[in-house]
Amino acid sequence: MGLIVQKFGGTSVADAPRIHRAARRAIAAKEAGNQVVVVVSAMGETTDHLIDLAKQVCEYGDCRGPSPKREMDQLLVTGEQVTIALMAMAIHAQGCQAISFTGGQIGLVTDAAFSKARIQSIEKQRVFEQLEKGKIVIIAGFQGMTPQGDFTTLGRGGSNATLVAIGAVLKADVCENYTDVDGIFTADPRLVPNARKIDRISYDEMLELAGRGASVLQTRAVEFAKKYNVPIHVRNSQNDNEGTWIVSETANMEHIVVSGAALKKELTRVTIKNVPDRPGIAARIFGDIAAGNIVVDDIIQNVMDDRTANISFTVERGELGDLKVVVERIVKELGQAKATYQDGLAKVSVVGVGMRVHTGVAQRMFAALADAKINIQNITTSEIKISCIIDEADGPRALRLVHDAFELHKLK
Amino acid sequence: MGLIVQKFGGTSVADAPRIHRAARRAIAAKEAGNQVVVVVSAMGETTDHLIDLAKQVCEYGDCRGPSPKREMDQLLVTGEQVTIALMAMAIHAQGCQAISFTGGQIGLVTDAAFSKARIQSIEKQRVFEQLEKGKIVIIAGFQGMTPQGDFTTLGRGGSNATLVAIGAVLKADVCENYTDVDGIFTADPRLVPNARKIDRISYDEMLELAGRGASVLQTRAVEFAKKYNVPIHVRNSQNDNEGTWIVSETANMEHIVVSGAALKKELTRVTIKNVPDRPGIAARIFGDIAAGNIVVDDIIQNVMDDRTANISFTVERGELGDLKVVVERIVKELGQAKATYQDGLAKVSVVGVGMRVHTGVAQRMFAALADAKINIQNITTSEIKISCIIDEADGPRALRLVHDAFELHKLK
Repeated sequence: MGLIVQKFGGTSVADAPRIHRAARRAIAAKEAGNQVVVVVSAMGETTDHLIDLAKQVCEYGDCRGPSPKREMDQLLVTGEQVTIALMAMAIHAQGCQAISFTGGQIGLVTDAAFSKARIQSIEKQRVFEQLEKGKIVIIAGFQGMTPQGDFTTLGRGGSNATLVAIGAVLKADVCENYTDVDGIFTADPRLVPNARKIDRISYDEMLELAGRGASVLQTRAVEFAKKYNVPIHVRNSQNDNEGTWIVSETANMEHIVVSGAALKKELTRVTIKNVPDRPGIAARIFGDIAAGNIVVDDIIQNVMDDRTANISFTVERGELGDLKVVVERIVKELGQAKATYQDGLAKVSVVGVGMRVHTGVAQRMFAALADAKINIQNITTSEIKISCIIDEADGPRALRLVHDAFELHKLK
Repeated sequence: MGLIVQKFGGTSVADAPRIHRAARRAIAAKEAGNQVVVVVSAMGETTDHLIDLAKQVCEYGDCRGPSPKREMDQLLVTGEQVTIALMAMAIHAQGCQAISFTGGQIGLVTDAAFSKARIQSIEKQRVFEQLEKGKIVIIAGFQGMTPQGDFTTLGRGGSNATLVAIGAVLKADVCENYTDVDGIFTADPRLVPNARKIDRISYDEMLELAGRGASVLQTRAVEFAKKYNVPIHVRNSQNDNEGTWIVSETANMEHIVVSGAALKKELTRVTIKNVPDRPGIAARIFGDIAAGNIVVDDIIQNVMDDRTANISFTVERGELGDLKVVVERIVKELGQAKATYQDGLAKVSVVGVGMRVHTGVAQRMFAALADAKINIQNITTSEIKISCIIDEADGPRALRLVHDAFELHKLK
């Protein structure tokens, strides 16, 4: 007897037969004696279709600004609402009891940052009431509601954030994340053909991999899972194989020096030159950027002389439009400072908790890239990862080289 | 300076260009100095598409029962939510301010009769707040929310019910109902080629026409409009012509004996024979039927001898499944009673407030049908209408005959 939260992504609920297949998994878990909550995404191409409708409408004029962002979320939350209703019907059709809830209906309250809202609280009581009646509870992923009653979406990977947040507040025994792959791989198998499925990985390693471009689970979902110690099991919805367990770090994990490698593409490096070198300037700059809800990474500051410094960081290309507005305002206020933007970059990273106790990891990575004449433009490191910024064109090759250098295809 | 509520049906918002056309109407009304609220239906075929998805899912098992009805409403309300968001974006794109609300978001509270819920209250404050900020307020038609937070739909013609209910609580100067026809006609122009647009019609006449099958505006919307004295202007969204005004009765309306004729098809007559003739039985029978939220019409009771009576009534074919369950239970409890069902019926009606002061109307109608050898199976009358139940196959011809008999094609 446990409490299981299952999440099915868009491809796993893309049509009626797949919805029924997902429903059978939920029912099987229920019949095995568990309480079951199911989080679903929008069906297949639904979100893209809704975005396309909005684009058609906005072709006729200017749809930017905060009000249209609210309306965009008002539009997009319908995608998951369609799936929850159909999933509940599918479970009914198979002879079990189910009830569906939108984010708003279970009191999943967020801030008002439309299109990338953050979860603030969940009223778990409504879920428990239904579980205690023996029902399978279906919850719409990717969405919430502000305290004022406006619908919000949680941004990229929002359904996974819902999965883990629900798992955390309900104190679930496991969050099962069903996708169309067998688990987390040592690298993206589309880029590295001999990549291998990882059986167990720590939250911290997954965090670094997620942040460096492994797209199955996003940083925020893993952060949440780590904070509340919720085990995540990433599985393939097409088979019954064991997938990858994302769990707290255990002692024997340190035997493995490098667990995985990742590539993040479409990066732009922003460099602000001639920044006055006095306390509080960096805090000021990144405070303004954070206030715009823009995620930056790989921050490097070099002091140029006793009065000025250069500050650089990377940002995803998609964020650049919003970011430029903020940066240009800051530059103007700072006087002699100047911003430059270099596009077409990628970042290759290796991650492993074993780095803490093993030496020579960085050297082995740099040598692999240098031997292949790949130029490293920036290096950033944490306790358990090493990242190199390189030309985007070199990205896939660099990932394969690094994967080979650490023999990640071999089971350890 | 007034307050106008506009409603656009599914065909008037079927694609991006039509949404923009509707948006331009709302903006024009705003720029003429009015406060403007817009009620919209789901785009074109959206509701049919959602119903089709549900059917696909339910093919695999049994989706009847109250829980799937809740899920069906959970599914269907997404249709209007898509339109409100796109309509708000279209108004933004044209340079005006707008904000969209679902039924739940403006506190449109209904009972829990899923698929045909009734409006209980509307929190008008949220609408007024936005109107006072100069925004055009977009509201999803056809939907509401129970006090427990479950989504409901208002049943057939629900968007018109929303239009009039919003018009009533906001004390609107006019409710403009935009459709794809020029207004209310003396009969359905598809069946009667020389039918003529009516300029003004009273609530009572419209009520009788709506109940007898004129499909532009449903009974419940007109009842609400009459109760709160909200003028409705039925107009064509494709042109700027004056349509039909539905208003309180005025003295000169009685000069017109018959305002319109209507045909209602797909009727089934239910006859319960050998009902014990004692007080309270009819109330008991129709109480049970009403509790099942089933609408019946044309109730006739004949006493057969001193102890028993026959009771008959008509019901739309679509309601028959739900109704039979209730009727068979009643018959069983009554002992010797027996129910029969006659399918394939239609009802032709003429309506006019002038009937109150003119005589010979019924005779003229019966003669027109008799001359054409159309058999009248039942007759029911009110102060301002006469209805005859006939074979469905005779329906369109009977409507044309009656329309000619009262010379409804001539402007009076």
